[in-house]
Formats: sequence, structure tokens, C-alpha cells
Amino acid sequence: MTQPPAPAPSAPVPQHHVPPDHVRIVEVGPRDGLQNDATHLTPAVRAELVTRLAASGLREIEAVSFVHPQRVPQMAGAEEVVTLARHALPATDAPALIGLVLNERGFERAVSVGLRHVRYAFPVTEGFARRNQNQTVEEALALARTLVARAREHDLQIGVVLATSFGCPFDGRVAPAHVLRVAEQVAQDAPDELVFADTIGVGNPVAVRELLRGAVRFGVPGMRLGAHFHNTRNTGYANAVAAVESGATSLDSSVGGLGGCPFAPRATGNVATEDLAYLLREMGVHTGLDLASLTQTGEWLSRQLGHALPGMLAQAGDFPA
Amino acid sequence: MTQPPAPAPSAPVPQHHVPPDHVRIVEVGPRDGLQNDATHLTPAVRAELVTRLAASGLREIEAVSFVHPQRVPQMAGAEEVVTLARHALPATDAPALIGLVLNERGFERAVSVGLRHVRYAFPVTEGFARRNQNQTVEEALALARTLVARAREHDLQIGVVLATSFGCPFDGRVAPAHVLRVAEQVAQDAPDELVFADTIGVGNPVAVRELLRGAVRFGVPGMRLGAHFHNTRNTGYANAVAAVESGATSLDSSVGGLGGCPFAPRATGNVATEDLAYLLREMGVHTGLDLASLTQTGEWLSRQLGHALPGMLAQAGDFPA
Repeated sequence: MTQPPAPAPSAPVPQHHVPPDHVRIVEVGPRDGLQNDATHLTPAVRAELVTRLAASGLREIEAVSFVHPQRVPQMAGAEEVVTLARHALPATDAPALIGLVLNERGFERAVSVGLRHVRYAFPVTEGFARRNQNQTVEEALALARTLVARAREHDLQIGVVLATSFGCPFDGRVAPAHVLRVAEQVAQDAPDELVFADTIGVGNPVAVRELLRGAVRFGVPGMRLGAHFHNTRNTGYANAVAAVESGATSLDSSVGGLGGCPFAPRATGNVATEDLAYLLREMGVHTGLDLASLTQTGEWLSRQLGHALPGMLAQAGDFPA
Repeated sequence: MTQPPAPAPSAPVPQHHVPPDHVRIVEVGPRDGLQNDATHLTPAVRAELVTRLAASGLREIEAVSFVHPQRVPQMAGAEEVVTLARHALPATDAPALIGLVLNERGFERAVSVGLRHVRYAFPVTEGFARRNQNQTVEEALALARTLVARAREHDLQIGVVLATSFGCPFDGRVAPAHVLRVAEQVAQDAPDELVFADTIGVGNPVAVRELLRGAVRFGVPGMRLGAHFHNTRNTGYANAVAAVESGATSLDSSVGGLGGCPFAPRATGNVATEDLAYLLREMGVHTGLDLASLTQTGEWLSRQLGHALPGMLAQAGDFPA
């Protein structure tokens, strides 16, 4: 028998895309959204935002970042936000409140205030790691291993977020193969969630598919795959579609599309939770979210911040069934 | 031999997506963009916009609409725009200037001013057809046949645009099967281009794929397939990706993301040419456009109009190679 001819090197490889039935939205507005806003909200208002988001159907809310308040003053009083929100939320069936941690001190603060869910984020690029966290990627990977182990000791759920997975403000373009090498090392410790984050909004659907499909092939049982997009250059929603059709079962977003990163020059908002939920619903993908309630929460938040938010559903209106 | 079992009705059908090497961008800013702007630009400024767009690499520009100026005052002086632009453009290798026509009177105006490219647009929904053009879809289809025949007599290129292909401000949701029935009738006359237009920004990638894949199956030689998206609810770019991966070889967009439709309540801008070209470039899809030049044209246009435009690349900046 003769071998069939190999495909020409330039022949595109067909990719199978299947929209899933359901995607879990992780609301990151109280953390990634607010940490880059010029307006600093009080812990009481931030806690109210969390409870409003929970009432809109969100089951996972990144509520705080345990970072030093001198570094990110918008996140000051994280413990107070958690305590106030916890008291305001229903005693049973409350959503998961997630605390972002960048180091062991942050992890200890999350444990002390009784959080059951944490996320550890670190950049996959040396330039960002050095300037943002004064460490190397290797050191950040070692810390991931430590924190996953400590989370297991404390019976916490832990997600690991790979920042700058699509590009870095300091190192520029990032090869997907490099990101997957870092991701594979994280996956060896089997955190509950692995998230590819497009910190500066330079991802594209082809790269998204490459990372998600690569991570699916790790085949780690119990490790959910997620993605985190900013709509800095109007690519965020196309990337979100690519992610959920390539194996992501969770997506980060911020109500109203607020957000950004204080360490990434010119980063703009996350994809808007209500716009993302609208898009997914139209594709037949369920999120369990109440669009009208989300829109109202975005309008309330816009008044608290004193400026408009980039989400478009609030302006254009839903397309009725 | 036994038949293989049929797939379960609820099983998702895998879809093959292949980004093409190249996509043709049809710039519709001078027509769809400007016709909904509160600022009415003079024919001289509109002609300058056309020449600036040509200098950015655009090879097809929808420059004017031959509609009565009492109805759409922004489009008054269409003949003057064409004449001025033609004199300013290089004598050889100039881009195609396209005139939008809604009826035979418009077609005659396009012929009279010497255009070689026209597009005829009509809605696939009865509610929009009645209110916007005081006709039925059946009558609009008959006119399509007439205009394609007349274009052939005059040796003009003609595209047919199916408005409200994803939803209608009056009739609501539109079944893709209905759109494909209308499209198939148009395809029988083999226009040079068939365009599915999301007039009010309610399309989604699943519906986009269904329409494009359905139209590919018509198998009409020489009939290019295109798509036209508004970013009203932040779905425009995801829809554009779905379209080019499902058989569309041209996409409409407006520099800066300006645009809208005066007959569709709350319609907002087209996808922005520079943001779309950026997204496609990042995916490895060539458009032949100069992003920096497009951004400058958007900034110039913003000054002419006296307001900001929604395109985001101008604000965020390109991601350098």
C-alpha cells in the first residue's frame, strides 16, 4: 500500500467547533473591573455590587484581591468586602466568592477571612513577571505548586490564572507553545481550574483555539479550563466564542465591561457579562444569568462610578424571544 | 449492509472552520456609516473620505446611496461625490466605487453617473419591506431579478444585499431557513455577490454559519458570498470570524465603526474596518489594508463629524509584530 500524500504545508487544518450546552461565567468585575477604575469604591459599595451580581444569577464572583492597599488602593479593605457580602448573601446556596492572591501572604489573608475559593495569577512572560511581581516565571511556577498544595491542606478550591497568555506589554508577542509549556507544568499539580488570560487584549481566535485545545489534551480530571478576555481591540467576544467552542467551560467577564489592569498600559475593560451572556444565549449556550438584572446592576454601578461603562446591551436593549 | 445509526437529534454537529488566506473588505462607511450620522457632510468631504479610504488599501468602497435626498439627506449629492472622488482617484488601478440602489430609479442614476458597480439591498422580512420600501418581499425579489438583468445589459457588477437576515426591528426573529429560501431565489439569477446583512445587530455565530454554509451549497459559480455586521450588541466581530470561516469571502465594515440605519431604531455602527482588519491579520487572514493609515482616516473623519467613533484600535494602538 502506498501512503496517502501528506497535506501541503500551507493547507489549513480544519477545526471542529461545537458550542457547548452550558458555560459557567465567572464575574470578575469587583476585582479586575474595579481595580483599574479611577473611582475608588468603599468596601460597603463593593459588597453591595457582589450581592447584586449574585441576585443576577452569578454563581462565582471574584470579589477581592489580597494585594497590598498601597499597591492597588481600589482593593483596600478586602476582608471587609468579604465579610459584608457574606452577611448580605443568602445563608444557603450562596455563590462562590473568589479571592485573588498573588503570593503566600495573600493566600493567608484569604484563609483568615474564611474564603473557600482562591485564584492565583501569574504572568507567563519574564518581562511582566519581573516588573509586576519581581520574580521569574520559574519562581512563579514554584509558588503555584506551593499554593495548590496549601489549598489542598485547607480544603480550598484553587484556580491558576496564566496572565499575558496572548501577549505582554513588555515582551510583546507570546508563542502559544511557550504558554502551553507553562500550562502543562501547572496542570501537573491539578488545580481546580486553569485560566488563560488575555491581560492586554491582543488575543485572537486562532491562538485561543490553540491554547484551549492544547490544554484539553493534558487530560487532567477535575481541572476546569477557563479563559479571560479584555475587549481592548474589539476581539474579546470573538475570542470568547472560540474558547467555549474549543474546550473552555468557564469564561471571565465584568458587568458593564468595566475593568483593566493597572500594570498593563492602556488595557481596557473585560468583556461585559451581560453582552457575553446575550451572545452565548443567542448561540444556544446557557449561562443561567438574568440579562435584565445584569443590565440594571451595570446601570447602578455606572452611577456609583460616575461614568459610563462600555457594555452595549444596556444601550441597545435585548432582542426579545 | 446496514445503515450507520443516525445521530441523536440533540447531538451537536461538529463544524469545520478554516480561516481563509485572504478576505476582501468592502468599506461601507461613506454610505451605511454616514447615512445615519447626525452630522451631514458635504459631497466634497465625502469624496475626500473615499479617496482617503482608497489610499489605505481599500479596493471596494460603497461610496453613495441613490436614494431621494428628502428621505436620507446625508446621501444628497451622490452624483457629485462620485464625480469628485473619481477625479481625485488614480486613473489606473482605482478601487471599485459601489453605488447602493433600492429601486430602478436609483439604478438609472448609478448608470448615468458612470458607476461600474452597484448593490441592490432589500429586506427579507415583510415588516421591514413594507415600512421601509412599501413593497412585499416577493416584489423585492422580482426587482432583484430585474436589476441583475439590467446590470448584465450594462455590463455592471451587481451585488444583492439581504437586509434583516438575522432579525428585524418589526418582525423580530428571522428563521435562517426563510432567509436561505429568499437567498436561493436571488442566487438563481447569479448576481456577482450575495450579502447577508445583520441590519440591527442581532446575529450570532451559529446563525451566521448556517446562512453562509447554506449559501455555499447553492454552488453558484462567480457569485461571491459576503456578510455585513453591526456591532450593536458587541457580537459583530465574532460574527465576522464565523462568516469568513464558513464561506464568506467578503465582509462589509466602516472606518472607525461609524454607521447605522436610519430606518432601524437604535441600530449602531458597523464593525470598524481597522478593528476588523486587525483581528483578521492576527488570525493570519490577509486584507491588504494599512492599519495605521485606516486609523488616521478614522481620526480625520472623527474631526469632520465632531464626535468620537466607536472603533477601538485607534485608542488602544496596534500590537506590533
